[in-house]
Amino acid sequence: MTDPLALARARGDGPALTVGAPVIPDRRGLAAYLDRALDSGRLSNFGPLASRLEERLAERLDVPYVLSCASGTTALMIALRVFGVSGPTVVPSFTFAATAGALDWAGASARFCDVEPACLTLCPIASEAALADGARALVPVHTYGGACDVAALRDLAARYRKPLIYDAAHAFGARFQGKAVAAYGDAAAISLHATKPFHTVEGGALLVHDQGALEEARRLANFGLDPRRGGTARRPLGLNGKMSEIHAAFGLALLDEYDTLHERRRAVMARYRARLPACWFLPASARGSGSDAYVAIAVPDGVARDDVVESARREGIGLRAYFAPPLHEIDPDADQAAFPVSRGAADRVICLPIHPDFTTAQIDRVADVVLRVCDAPRAN
Amino acid sequence: MTDPLALARARGDGPALTVGAPVIPDRRGLAAYLDRALDSGRLSNFGPLASRLEERLAERLDVPYVLSCASGTTALMIALRVFGVSGPTVVPSFTFAATAGALDWAGASARFCDVEPACLTLCPIASEAALADGARALVPVHTYGGACDVAALRDLAARYRKPLIYDAAHAFGARFQGKAVAAYGDAAAISLHATKPFHTVEGGALLVHDQGALEEARRLANFGLDPRRGGTARRPLGLNGKMSEIHAAFGLALLDEYDTLHERRRAVMARYRARLPACWFLPASARGSGSDAYVAIAVPDGVARDDVVESARREGIGLRAYFAPPLHEIDPDADQAAFPVSRGAADRVICLPIHPDFTTAQIDRVADVVLRVCDAPRAN
Repeated sequence: MTDPLALARARGDGPALTVGAPVIPDRRGLAAYLDRALDSGRLSNFGPLASRLEERLAERLDVPYVLSCASGTTALMIALRVFGVSGPTVVPSFTFAATAGALDWAGASARFCDVEPACLTLCPIASEAALADGARALVPVHTYGGACDVAALRDLAARYRKPLIYDAAHAFGARFQGKAVAAYGDAAAISLHATKPFHTVEGGALLVHDQGALEEARRLANFGLDPRRGGTARRPLGLNGKMSEIHAAFGLALLDEYDTLHERRRAVMARYRARLPACWFLPASARGSGSDAYVAIAVPDGVARDDVVESARREGIGLRAYFAPPLHEIDPDADQAAFPVSRGAADRVICLPIHPDFTTAQIDRVADVVLRVCDAPRAN
Repeated sequence: MTDPLALARARGDGPALTVGAPVIPDRRGLAAYLDRALDSGRLSNFGPLASRLEERLAERLDVPYVLSCASGTTALMIALRVFGVSGPTVVPSFTFAATAGALDWAGASARFCDVEPACLTLCPIASEAALADGARALVPVHTYGGACDVAALRDLAARYRKPLIYDAAHAFGARFQGKAVAAYGDAAAISLHATKPFHTVEGGALLVHDQGALEEARRLANFGLDPRRGGTARRPLGLNGKMSEIHAAFGLALLDEYDTLHERRRAVMARYRARLPACWFLPASARGSGSDAYVAIAVPDGVARDDVVESARREGIGLRAYFAPPLHEIDPDADQAAFPVSRGAADRVICLPIHPDFTTAQIDRVADVVLRVCDAPRAN
């Protein structure tokens, strides 16, 4: 398979025109943080750079406690264990495999529910039916950084007395009703993977609201060793969920530039909106604003999504179908007819490349391809 | 608690006199690899540096296939899932919490067995009893890099038709009967954590012997997405087990220097052997040679291990008790009387600091403290 990134690089035209091309921090700023780590002789294990990053993230994300993690998936796995999640757990079908995967590793199991048409986030009505049927926790996803129906889900969690843990992988930078989208719920796991607007190369963060949860999460991220018992292990055991000082250095360097980069990504988004019909864009911002992780559009009726992806690929442009097929299709027990919204979204949604360094000409190249293929049926 | 590393640093005498002080690669060599990653625009997801590292490790470790991973624990978790390990699984009690933790996450459970007195590695006799009693896999540990009784364990695994997956966390650089210790078994997981002689800051590697196992491991390290099905998810689902290009850069830089560093660590070991009674050293090399990860000694009869650790700590020296308490003590179902060797080792074993940059004077400072406390009962 041709690598679209390699293609775009070969053309020598700046960052790859592909979804998820990483932002590289300013090298001088990065070198200063890396030198700090190398000079200190501490390379991991809750070092000073990871701690500093946690402080800065807590401030920005409106939560009292943040644990930096090896990945967003690790953060979610740890969160599930902190809150004792086991058994059938509500997750949306329209999500990345990691949401359900984290449940499997943590000893729970996915109870897939469909998403709402407006925002493609977990449907509270389907969720309530699952809870009434015995589901033991809620793991909704802030799809593309747009907030879930946080009020309805909070009420459900309270009424059924179940943990509410958000997969906030996409939600860095997104805000809703005066606070960070990732600040809702008993806990939230965000991804800081290289493909995200703010990243630590590989990484994630767990956001919690009380110190007990933080301490338990740290214990689980450090193999289950308990600092209150001289560092000896106790059950439940953990894993290696730590963020290295080197990855934290990337995060700190990028955070220094984040506000500027965010503005530039918002400008890219604005250009796409100026070029493409408004009705193609997913209303992910119906609940919240500021998310700059994904530019998601739904191709119009009569257009085959894969034709758009393939046409773009031939021009060195890496679009991506998120998330297809919908995840309930891997579950032989799921009623396959119960997911019309997930199914429809999986057939039609495409994410467009976004990068703070894109030029207008680059954005227009992407928009032109998408317009050409998507408008063809109408032109005929 | 005082940080021994901070203490030693304050004295300005080179690398910290503490177990696990990381080796920092030559900065110029490191910068070249880091620049390669930053210039490529690829920061993770099976990038070229991780691939190159895998090739070099495969060559060095006498296995056809290596998967670079986010950590040694992740590598072990993936290995367990590749080989379908579930249910009670034999592990030694004298090991790090991660061995049993990986089993818990993978949906298996630890069936603790005692270790052999000579090498402190999994006892084949106890293992056979556990297999006869229904244990469904073997996960032995090459303690301190000394090989397990690989012939006996291979025979057991064959006779009972069970997977044999080695926790080779300590085994980088160790050899036995003409090949790398980590090359034994159906699979082996090594740790490349910053505290190891060869490391990738945070990291690990999974060693396997056929391409099918490698492909399945890669799929699981990438959330369970199947490249043969266009990158869609299938069960069993995976997690984020990838090594970043940045961590791989550290590995490649350090690997360029490894042979020299290994010689220097061997010289440190030789100095310790010259200074301390031969009978104190664990015969970890009874099966194999070349391991330079740990200098493990057992304190003599009548000496309280914690007195040695505490006396050293007061002088800024970080010794470490590996592994105390033994892990069967967290298992309420284990017959606590069935682990005399693990129990004894946990009470007596100390690891001494080792680092390629230690001077003779530094090694002697450590040896002097240990000798002073350990010889005191005899002197009285």
